[in-house]
Amino acid sequence: MRDFDEHNITDAVIDRFGDTPDPRLKAILDSLVHHLHDFVRDVEPTFDEWIAAIGFLTRTGQMCSESRQEFILLSDTLGVSMLVDAINHRMPEGATETTVLGPFYLDNAPHFASGADIAVGMAGEPLYCEVAISSANGTPLAGAIVDVWQSDSEGFYDVQRTDLDESKLRGRFTADDQGILRFWTITPTAYPIPHDGPVGQMLIATNRHPWRPAHLHFMITAAAHEPLVTHVFVDGDQYLESDAVFGVKNSLVDPYPVQAPGVAPDGRVMDGRWRRLDYKFGLKPMPA
Amino acid sequence: MRDFDEHNITDAVIDRFGDTPDPRLKAILDSLVHHLHDFVRDVEPTFDEWIAAIGFLTRTGQMCSESRQEFILLSDTLGVSMLVDAINHRMPEGATETTVLGPFYLDNAPHFASGADIAVGMAGEPLYCEVAISSANGTPLAGAIVDVWQSDSEGFYDVQRTDLDESKLRGRFTADDQGILRFWTITPTAYPIPHDGPVGQMLIATNRHPWRPAHLHFMITAAAHEPLVTHVFVDGDQYLESDAVFGVKNSLVDPYPVQAPGVAPDGRVMDGRWRRLDYKFGLKPMPA
Repeated sequence: MRDFDEHNITDAVIDRFGDTPDPRLKAILDSLVHHLHDFVRDVEPTFDEWIAAIGFLTRTGQMCSESRQEFILLSDTLGVSMLVDAINHRMPEGATETTVLGPFYLDNAPHFASGADIAVGMAGEPLYCEVAISSANGTPLAGAIVDVWQSDSEGFYDVQRTDLDESKLRGRFTADDQGILRFWTITPTAYPIPHDGPVGQMLIATNRHPWRPAHLHFMITAAAHEPLVTHVFVDGDQYLESDAVFGVKNSLVDPYPVQAPGVAPDGRVMDGRWRRLDYKFGLKPMPA
Repeated sequence: MRDFDEHNITDAVIDRFGDTPDPRLKAILDSLVHHLHDFVRDVEPTFDEWIAAIGFLTRTGQMCSESRQEFILLSDTLGVSMLVDAINHRMPEGATETTVLGPFYLDNAPHFASGADIAVGMAGEPLYCEVAISSANGTPLAGAIVDVWQSDSEGFYDVQRTDLDESKLRGRFTADDQGILRFWTITPTAYPIPHDGPVGQMLIATNRHPWRPAHLHFMITAAAHEPLVTHVFVDGDQYLESDAVFGVKNSLVDPYPVQAPGVAPDGRVMDGRWRRLDYKFGLKPMPA
């Protein structure tokens, strides 16, 4: 086949993928070519705009390193990550909604016993958490494994700080026989996504800010259930309506109610203001 | 706005670009989000497929260097480059069709007088070219500047060979008062696009070959006309129907007729087989 024009080239390219052995790969490439060509026909880029797009994608790839994934940031800020998340987590009644994993999860977080303080000395407003893990139908999930991680009072995760020689504000717990666990930490704060690269340039060029509203991250696993990756956001945060990565869902916003000085549930005497979070997570059972 | 789901997130992201000062950038991003989200909804990628796509794009960016542009190769092999070319070159009657520039153009090619041999000693089948440059209405374009470049008898461009200390098979000419120029070279050969990177992996995974059919490249500029970037392909090449970058157009295929031994038009005595190319190029006038 020769003599492609702006109308017939799409079928010609799809045709060229006709011998792809893997049917799933073939379906993905067919759809990609279809939608990508429609986009080009829609905007009719000039040669200079096409070169600018090539340059943006190149710089995005070259910004990536062991500790930075700029294409995930691009996916996040274009709403693609949350769309992929939504498609993969159509949840039954009673199951907690999901949101993005984010770039700061570590799979080797330190283990703590229930009741521990994961702030490990980091300054901030004290926060007492009691979370309950159950199946979507309400059955408690004894022994569920719960990873928690979060930003500090200045908006940084421990992995972003070069002055730390141990994990902070990050821990792994095992739920008790009732599927409950309790821990101390500090109230998380809002923070900007990394914005010194091509994605940051896109945000500036479009008058968008890079901020995410304050939240605790949770990853919860239990036998015979799908892993749950989600956040619990702090109500009242100024960025709840404009999260740079579109991650907020109403069911994941909690008041983290402020508590007066006094005695905390575990007997700790609180001289100043503190908060607590009580939250129930429901996990989606695996297909039988 | 919160509580995005797989249906309403597209409008939410487009909304977020609502304060983009440059209306053209806003239109491009709106269309990008629309088509990109439609693609995701269409294929419903798993989390692992999404991560695989992120990894492919990252490796494509990291393959790029001063002398290699892997995102342009990706654009070429997905038919996007030729689509952008077609959209930007809707040609009037009498104007030569365009095709891709390719990665081997140099803007500082050596100047030659009409009649010169740009092979400069490179072995191959001799080829005598006489090309005529006119406006789309047939008026000769005296003084048009013509860049020619091509692969050698083994399928390489001079810039790909580390053993050369000067340009070969590449030159810049000025057309005479009748818009004519003549030169000697060798017959070009088919060659593979660079396929040792992510794009090559895509071609292997989809049972596609990396070959381009043999062609001479031309870039022609003349006062008051749009620059013309095109190829003239050699008829009979086995890859004319399956050019890896979708660049072939019937009007750009020429037989390069084989000539018997004898005397060439400029008096050169030819002991063996040779070819000639006679081709007329028409340039599109600039808007008045």
